[in-house]
Amino acid sequence: MTGPLLPTTEASCRLRPVTTARIGGGLLGARQEANGRAAVPSGHERLGAAGNLDNLRIAAGEHAGEPRGPVFMDSDVYKWLEAAAWEYARAPRPALLEAQRAVTAVVAAAQRADGYLNSMVRERYRDLPWSHEHYCAGHLMQAAVAQSRATGDKALLEVAVRFADHLVATFGPGRTEDVDGHPIVEMGLVELYRETGRRDYLDLARWFVDARGHGLIEKHGHEPTYFSDRVPVREQTTVEGHAVRAVYLTAGAADVALETGDGELLGALRRQFAHMLATKTYVTGGLGSRWEGESFGDPYELPPDRAYAETCAAVGGIQWAWRMLLATGDSSYADAAERMLFNGFLAGVSLSGAEYFYVNPLQARAGVHPDENRSPAHGRRGWFDCACCPPNVMRTIASLSAYLATTDDDGIQIQMYAPGTIEAQGVRLAVDTAYPWDGVVRVRVLEAPPREWTLSLRVPQWAHGAVLQGDDVEAGEYADLRRTWRAGDEVELRLPMTVRTTTAGPRVDAVRGCVALERGPLVYAVEHPAADDLRFEAVTSAEFRPGVLGGVTVVGLAVRVREHHEEPWPYGPDGHGSPGARAEVAAVPYFAWANRGVGPMRVWLPDGRR
Amino acid sequence: MTGPLLPTTEASCRLRPVTTARIGGGLLGARQEANGRAAVPSGHERLGAAGNLDNLRIAAGEHAGEPRGPVFMDSDVYKWLEAAAWEYARAPRPALLEAQRAVTAVVAAAQRADGYLNSMVRERYRDLPWSHEHYCAGHLMQAAVAQSRATGDKALLEVAVRFADHLVATFGPGRTEDVDGHPIVEMGLVELYRETGRRDYLDLARWFVDARGHGLIEKHGHEPTYFSDRVPVREQTTVEGHAVRAVYLTAGAADVALETGDGELLGALRRQFAHMLATKTYVTGGLGSRWEGESFGDPYELPPDRAYAETCAAVGGIQWAWRMLLATGDSSYADAAERMLFNGFLAGVSLSGAEYFYVNPLQARAGVHPDENRSPAHGRRGWFDCACCPPNVMRTIASLSAYLATTDDDGIQIQMYAPGTIEAQGVRLAVDTAYPWDGVVRVRVLEAPPREWTLSLRVPQWAHGAVLQGDDVEAGEYADLRRTWRAGDEVELRLPMTVRTTTAGPRVDAVRGCVALERGPLVYAVEHPAADDLRFEAVTSAEFRPGVLGGVTVVGLAVRVREHHEEPWPYGPDGHGSPGARAEVAAVPYFAWANRGVGPMRVWLPDGRR
Repeated sequence: MTGPLLPTTEASCRLRPVTTARIGGGLLGARQEANGRAAVPSGHERLGAAGNLDNLRIAAGEHAGEPRGPVFMDSDVYKWLEAAAWEYARAPRPALLEAQRAVTAVVAAAQRADGYLNSMVRERYRDLPWSHEHYCAGHLMQAAVAQSRATGDKALLEVAVRFADHLVATFGPGRTEDVDGHPIVEMGLVELYRETGRRDYLDLARWFVDARGHGLIEKHGHEPTYFSDRVPVREQTTVEGHAVRAVYLTAGAADVALETGDGELLGALRRQFAHMLATKTYVTGGLGSRWEGESFGDPYELPPDRAYAETCAAVGGIQWAWRMLLATGDSSYADAAERMLFNGFLAGVSLSGAEYFYVNPLQARAGVHPDENRSPAHGRRGWFDCACCPPNVMRTIASLSAYLATTDDDGIQIQMYAPGTIEAQGVRLAVDTAYPWDGVVRVRVLEAPPREWTLSLRVPQWAHGAVLQGDDVEAGEYADLRRTWRAGDEVELRLPMTVRTTTAGPRVDAVRGCVALERGPLVYAVEHPAADDLRFEAVTSAEFRPGVLGGVTVVGLAVRVREHHEEPWPYGPDGHGSPGARAEVAAVPYFAWANRGVGPMRVWLPDGRR
Repeated sequence: MTGPLLPTTEASCRLRPVTTARIGGGLLGARQEANGRAAVPSGHERLGAAGNLDNLRIAAGEHAGEPRGPVFMDSDVYKWLEAAAWEYARAPRPALLEAQRAVTAVVAAAQRADGYLNSMVRERYRDLPWSHEHYCAGHLMQAAVAQSRATGDKALLEVAVRFADHLVATFGPGRTEDVDGHPIVEMGLVELYRETGRRDYLDLARWFVDARGHGLIEKHGHEPTYFSDRVPVREQTTVEGHAVRAVYLTAGAADVALETGDGELLGALRRQFAHMLATKTYVTGGLGSRWEGESFGDPYELPPDRAYAETCAAVGGIQWAWRMLLATGDSSYADAAERMLFNGFLAGVSLSGAEYFYVNPLQARAGVHPDENRSPAHGRRGWFDCACCPPNVMRTIASLSAYLATTDDDGIQIQMYAPGTIEAQGVRLAVDTAYPWDGVVRVRVLEAPPREWTLSLRVPQWAHGAVLQGDDVEAGEYADLRRTWRAGDEVELRLPMTVRTTTAGPRVDAVRGCVALERGPLVYAVEHPAADDLRFEAVTSAEFRPGVLGGVTVVGLAVRVREHHEEPWPYGPDGHGSPGARAEVAAVPYFAWANRGVGPMRVWLPDGRR
């Protein structure tokens, strides 16, 4: 097994990722199965139908015609190649390998003699803020590294190296001083450095990080905030502008900090992550409050209905959080990654695996006309004109096993709970759990070296009352067990799975007077025809229902449902009508909403408790 | 005196506008003075500096060069010409007449031999959804009618007639079947019909109204909702898409209904207006919930912080409401117009008269970086790249006297209360009032014919407890007094000016648990450094303060101010902190906010009453 993030031995990691874990079933396993069965093959077809592959063939001179689609069409090809590679590592099938090789050949043929590669851009680097040339290069590098690690094939890696060499020769101090409007090349270059040992790739990544915030985008006539270019990364105190751009940049900067041991940069990123969590993150982990510019809002501007919370922003958020975890060892970053993964991210894909939300609101009203291609009122869709999200989901789900566990000199930390196996440092562990439906996690030692080491289990911040081996353990840290482990040893962690009623702090204006329901790492949602008109009164039950939505724990709620009357003017003196009739409704995990049609939905329920 | 809307004698008006009213002081008078003194002259300069006039000179072949600015640059010239005309009618000054004539000459020189006129568009009618060619024509017609009525000059009217003749020859059934993406030509054509008697202009306006909703915009590859082209006007049940486009279209459709006696069309417009008020209007009368597409949101989607509530949408809203009032006689339309005028519209301009808000939110948070040209965090600005709002404000303020009163066969209805005079049907009335600061309105008869007629005074919907001549009168209707009036007769209406605490219905999610303060027609706002952190407890005072903001009634509030602590994660179990410390803060009329710097502001205050 392998993974998308392999720090070098020189990296300043507090923790290192375990790349030999495997998810064997459960919720995440089912998502991986659906991804491999439905999404990755359909993605391949979409690249053909939408023109992505033809664009490359035109660039190679193999086809006549004009390229079609948005300027970043190539990146979808690379994201799919990355997904296919991780999927091949998870479940090797010859047909999938063949498909990768065929697509790789199409990519390779489109590369110019000097290494440059882009099927859409006519005049190189003329408007880098919008052209996505480095963005596509970054995705190419990530895909190439994935292919090399997962299949051993070096064909795409050679393409990526040639492109990276071209970038090194072209950009940087004293050469062309310009940055791409959409970060990701930073992550790509650092990972290519990790795979090839080419220090100049790391140096260029660092330069791209540090070049931001110095007017390079404004020079092209663009307002810099959208492009994460208003403030130097080291001086920034928040996240702002386009959410995906912002978190891709910070994830790349975290990679640079990891590999260069740059404590100042890491400190700036800690500050930014903290401010994001404190003021700009939805309870679902969703990032980005505004459709306008697909951007973060002001602090505490977190409307549930117009949440943008792009699926790609959840991907970037998880990537950033994971890098911060490796750099700091602080389990709160794994908490954040888990929240993003199980809620804001997983909602982006259907249970059947090949339909996607671009936008992930926390409220959907009744009877809305979907006037926008990306509107959630359409339900999840198989592809988009701007198809960034679907292959981003594919590559993330295919590589989920990379986020299960970490190691340090002292032992192994289990970060995410899923049934499966974890191997590292001569240790083999089997994890048995029905998490997140059940809070019991059993870890069995299958093999262990004859020396003391520490098994650490992350106790999430919400898990007050967690018990490890019969002893209470603190929420929000690791529970450690140090000993000389033997095959057959077993450890049991019990995480409390009571349904939590959560309210928002007073500055989160948009959900004042409301309550959200959480259970374990999952945020819940009510899908109900009368969701616009109900008030929460009490939690009445929580039961695993194998027949519902592929098997989920359904939470029963006592509510009041008010009959809606359209008043001629919705404002007036106090005392609007009756409390409504008593009713019972079901809440389901937010990630599973809109799998039975799209109707009214709420995460935040008006609070009718006294 | 004259005005922007003069129905023909054949029009199906329940009421007809009084065009010989004059505002003599008070709040609206002060705004007119500032508009005439500061705004109209500065607008003239801006047209020179921003290139609007040069563009026309280039089109005329008088200047070399390329036109600059957005495609609708000509419309700003026409809106300014309209403003200058109404301002000249209000306060004739030779210099202003000279300026109008000079600008008119620039416009006239740019007109093509066949009547077409546009300085920006290279290829006529190639992309009418975006080109704004009819939009500019519509503003030209309105300006031409204004100039003709206000100054007697016919130069611009001749230009407008030639353009209208060209449009009649070019568009319509069996000719080019296409509609402009931005309505207003409908209003322009109907008014040009009213001024010239040319029935074909009315016919074309009706065709433009009825052509919408039949795929003409979609044919050009655009999603039709934004352009008010998804549903035929007669079948539409709501307002949707771009807010200014939507209400300009419905105002034009109302003009068509007025002049053609089309009851079906009027019925459709009543339905749409009702749905707008019931579900898509801010308490300030602001229209448009979304920055994205400058558009109406879904029903009850009314976020205070991200309210777009464009100043131009308030202009269009007032125009639509006024036409509905004339068509139906229903005073609730005047109520709506008054709310829009005194709040959502007037907030768009500074007290000094020449600085403008494009966007009018109901909440501004502390310390926000203004990343958008139109962000209210900049404060009001003298002009915008897209300068639609400033001259729209100018023409509206200059013509406010047209909205004071109406007549029918039976008498005179006073619709808006301002000190001044009203003349109609041989009657002269003097109105003496300090409204909206004071609720006493005295109407004195200066001159009256020797016959019975009815003086009607609008009692706003909020005015429960209003008293006319000592008798209680109903809120939400006209209070009528029928008699043979004589010079010297005097009538006193007393409108209750207690401060009202207003809450929103349960579907208005964004302001749940909040209270807004209203007094008379004015919505109030709290500007305070701690506005993000306060809770309302009680109204403690209401006092006119001549030295504050040019003289406003300041409302004192008892509040709790909570000290803000940034929690690492803003969601958690119930019970976030203390209620905060007691304090007194001042609320001022919303329209006057941001005249003492821009800081935190709220219309909706979290409700701390038990």
